[in-house]
Amino acid sequence: MTEPRTLTWEEQASKTQTGLWNKIPKEWHLSKDILEHQHRNILPQIESAGILSPHEISITRHEDATTLLSKIHSGVLSAEEVTVAFCKRAAIAHQLVNCLMDVDFDAAVARARELDQYLRASGQVVGPLHGLPISIKDLTAVKDLHYSMGYVSWAENVATNDCVVVDTLRAAGAVIYAKTTMPQSGMCLETTSNLFGRTLNPFNTSLTPGGSSGGESALLACRGSILGIGGSIRIPAAFTGLYSLKPTSRRVSYKGNMNNSSGLGISSSIGPMGHSVRDLELAMRVLVDGRHWVKDSAVFEKPWTKSILSEPARKLCIGLVEWDEQVMPHPPIRRALRITEEKLIAAGHEVIRVKAYRHRDGEEIARRLFYQLGTTFISDELSKTDEPPIKAIEKKIGREPGSLADVANSRRQCEAYKDGYLGWWNATAEKSSSKQPIDALLLPAGGSTSFPHDFVPTWNYVTIYNFIDYPCMKIPITTVDRAVDVKDGQYVPVSEQDGVNYRLYDPEVFDGMPVCLQLVGRPFGEEALLSVGSVVDGVVRGN
Amino acid sequence: MTEPRTLTWEEQASKTQTGLWNKIPKEWHLSKDILEHQHRNILPQIESAGILSPHEISITRHEDATTLLSKIHSGVLSAEEVTVAFCKRAAIAHQLVNCLMDVDFDAAVARARELDQYLRASGQVVGPLHGLPISIKDLTAVKDLHYSMGYVSWAENVATNDCVVVDTLRAAGAVIYAKTTMPQSGMCLETTSNLFGRTLNPFNTSLTPGGSSGGESALLACRGSILGIGGSIRIPAAFTGLYSLKPTSRRVSYKGNMNNSSGLGISSSIGPMGHSVRDLELAMRVLVDGRHWVKDSAVFEKPWTKSILSEPARKLCIGLVEWDEQVMPHPPIRRALRITEEKLIAAGHEVIRVKAYRHRDGEEIARRLFYQLGTTFISDELSKTDEPPIKAIEKKIGREPGSLADVANSRRQCEAYKDGYLGWWNATAEKSSSKQPIDALLLPAGGSTSFPHDFVPTWNYVTIYNFIDYPCMKIPITTVDRAVDVKDGQYVPVSEQDGVNYRLYDPEVFDGMPVCLQLVGRPFGEEALLSVGSVVDGVVRGN
Repeated sequence: MTEPRTLTWEEQASKTQTGLWNKIPKEWHLSKDILEHQHRNILPQIESAGILSPHEISITRHEDATTLLSKIHSGVLSAEEVTVAFCKRAAIAHQLVNCLMDVDFDAAVARARELDQYLRASGQVVGPLHGLPISIKDLTAVKDLHYSMGYVSWAENVATNDCVVVDTLRAAGAVIYAKTTMPQSGMCLETTSNLFGRTLNPFNTSLTPGGSSGGESALLACRGSILGIGGSIRIPAAFTGLYSLKPTSRRVSYKGNMNNSSGLGISSSIGPMGHSVRDLELAMRVLVDGRHWVKDSAVFEKPWTKSILSEPARKLCIGLVEWDEQVMPHPPIRRALRITEEKLIAAGHEVIRVKAYRHRDGEEIARRLFYQLGTTFISDELSKTDEPPIKAIEKKIGREPGSLADVANSRRQCEAYKDGYLGWWNATAEKSSSKQPIDALLLPAGGSTSFPHDFVPTWNYVTIYNFIDYPCMKIPITTVDRAVDVKDGQYVPVSEQDGVNYRLYDPEVFDGMPVCLQLVGRPFGEEALLSVGSVVDGVVRGN
Repeated sequence: MTEPRTLTWEEQASKTQTGLWNKIPKEWHLSKDILEHQHRNILPQIESAGILSPHEISITRHEDATTLLSKIHSGVLSAEEVTVAFCKRAAIAHQLVNCLMDVDFDAAVARARELDQYLRASGQVVGPLHGLPISIKDLTAVKDLHYSMGYVSWAENVATNDCVVVDTLRAAGAVIYAKTTMPQSGMCLETTSNLFGRTLNPFNTSLTPGGSSGGESALLACRGSILGIGGSIRIPAAFTGLYSLKPTSRRVSYKGNMNNSSGLGISSSIGPMGHSVRDLELAMRVLVDGRHWVKDSAVFEKPWTKSILSEPARKLCIGLVEWDEQVMPHPPIRRALRITEEKLIAAGHEVIRVKAYRHRDGEEIARRLFYQLGTTFISDELSKTDEPPIKAIEKKIGREPGSLADVANSRRQCEAYKDGYLGWWNATAEKSSSKQPIDALLLPAGGSTSFPHDFVPTWNYVTIYNFIDYPCMKIPITTVDRAVDVKDGQYVPVSEQDGVNYRLYDPEVFDGMPVCLQLVGRPFGEEALLSVGSVVDGVVRGN
């Protein structure tokens, strides 16, 4: 905080939003006409708005970062023109879906120019990400840019240093140009705050792009970014048709990322979100090659083993969990599972159906560990500016901390649950033809492909893997088709929360939404998981 | 517990000790004459007692497990004769220093016989430890043997399964024949309990063999075992002239080992104690090759990289910490540091003197984390049989648990301290000629080479590495020589605890005691630490 707080929360929010708006060049402002006539799916409007040149459209439409990097490194494209194109497209996306919380376009373009000069002069790149614009989520410290955790009370906070992850990305040649929104406190699966307002899903603005990294997912889906970094990236990727990898928590440094964790329960992790499996591998390789274990005592020393994507294909055995026995996924998600299963089998792989391992018990322990310090840390922040809680946070307010004995007990239960889960995974060997345990687990990424604003969903399907700390990937499989993905009128919900999710589904509302699935690997087995992900992705896309 | 408790604690202890005594064959009982005339150093009495044959003496005197194994595997010695020799020597040692808490000699000999038959029939060994007798500390679960944590209330507890570590050792061919004593509750650096009485240091029975694995160290020092496994093995090894390796806590499974830990603070670890660096490497390799990460979700997947002992020697850079600025080590320990420094330099290695990193602060945080759940878990156990606390536990009784906020706060301080320590280690690069950080840290293993029974020492020098979870080795360097290691009459203690340690030193009392030093490596760098330890050991021994 650089000044005594004299503004109301509304005034502070307005000041902050104006400050951000003033950083966007006037010539990139959308016309009133477009802003007043936003489509349900705003994606086509980005390119039709008349701001991006055909060349800029072509740059930002590149398949993935790997393709774009090869053009930058071979001199076909300059880092400067690439950076300008993404800054511009990010600014346009922001005006349509409200996904940015800070930018420094000038510094980014200046850095890109330096990189171009270096490459021209030396014939060398500074690293594997040389010249690539990368967007970063709010809570990750980027020198001279704001971080807020979605709290009005943090509105004036500016990071004095890059965190370990950002430092590693920059050393590899990345150009940081934008930071993206997150919800108030970070503790929800959509992205809205009093400070920055609401972030919308570009495929259907009446729905959320997920959270807490919803700014990142909305920006990437708009192709205002080609590679993003965030913590809490699974639901956002799943709701916007992206690829993401949540690594095991101690594989990549979390230092310099803001956090609600007490350090007593569930560890946070940070990972990449992007447009291809190989981009996730590239980002992970760069991060792990950054040897975070010599910079952050929480990180395990485990070098990146090899470029697993080049491994010879072998017959995989995938465990398929149809549902978690708590919430039945909507029809398009069940169809995505069937498609994937059929294509895997057709390609010669083995798919064995397995019953979910005690998700309900796991969630119960996870919930206790998540809130063991209560939620006074949230209410304390809100009270500093008298801002109200957002809807998703409203019912979390007022939780008292547990006792030390409770926490110790929950942690013992957690350890026992993790051992149980490990045993369950090992036992899949009995069902596989090779008598080896499954290579990965395939399951829904959630009960729905998104949800309307202010809807408060259950956290099934993803929380469990925070809790047991297994690495997870999201892979886009298909899109919702209202003609095919009809509502199952016969389905009888098994519980209240299942009923809520069942009633949520309306083929008209969800038509056209991307459908992702989740792949889960073994702890610290990020390389192996990406390798499996690459095979699954290839099979689904018919490569 | 197999029966309702109707005995007094004295009756239960007597019953338990009688039960153990009855498992020792009569022909191995020492004469009254020897028992009534124990020397200060009982080691020569083991062989002069007339119970071991010259062949058995020669078997148990083998340099280390590696040498012995080569003879078993080549058929020069049978596993059976080796096992009998160690059972016998362990039984003799026990009568002199009271180091065993359970045995099953018959089962061990039967297993050894099976292994011999297998080797004869197949020409193959079952694994790298084929036929090697191994002793195990009380708290580690061995099927059908007792475990007690030194509590009378646990006297009748018998393990129904082998723990992961024991399972791995057996799969590699080890023969488990004895379990060794630990102090009441495990929370002290000597080894005494109401249940089994006091374990003595064989080099000087008026002193302790250390704790909590003092039964293991006393037995190994008597050569009643050639390789032992325990948790808390550093002080015991240091007080009896042995080699030991405490690995990073998540490298080897701790599952099935009893524990006081709340799981909220300091993690326990288990490792080997033995007679050579290569034996430590052998044991660690076998344990890590056991792939505990597929059996215990707390273990981090990191395969054993290679036989580092065969690495080509290179110039090492060792950081030497003379003292922790809390407790000045006794003169023989300071001499051991000088000897080691001189020999390393003479052999072409670099030694840089570094100031200890905030040991006092580290210990303060460690103490809070150790006792965060209070000590009611100890008093609860004692009250079940009305047994009194032992002297070292007396003053720990009655600590109340901290609050959850206190614990969360201590953990944050712990993380900050660990980052500080890491930064301090990295900064040694500025002082080294290669501009690389030190390969390992060399420092005293404690302020003294042992201490008299019921003396309550400070835990300096070792606790810090539990707390920050770095791997540590103990290496024997020399023995106390009263003619050389005279008391420094000029020394002015810097604090009360330093004064207590200063007054403890009497060259007459400590004459002949082994002197070990401590080597510390980087987290999960067990292979590198053993490699450095092998070089230091070779230099000290003039190889």
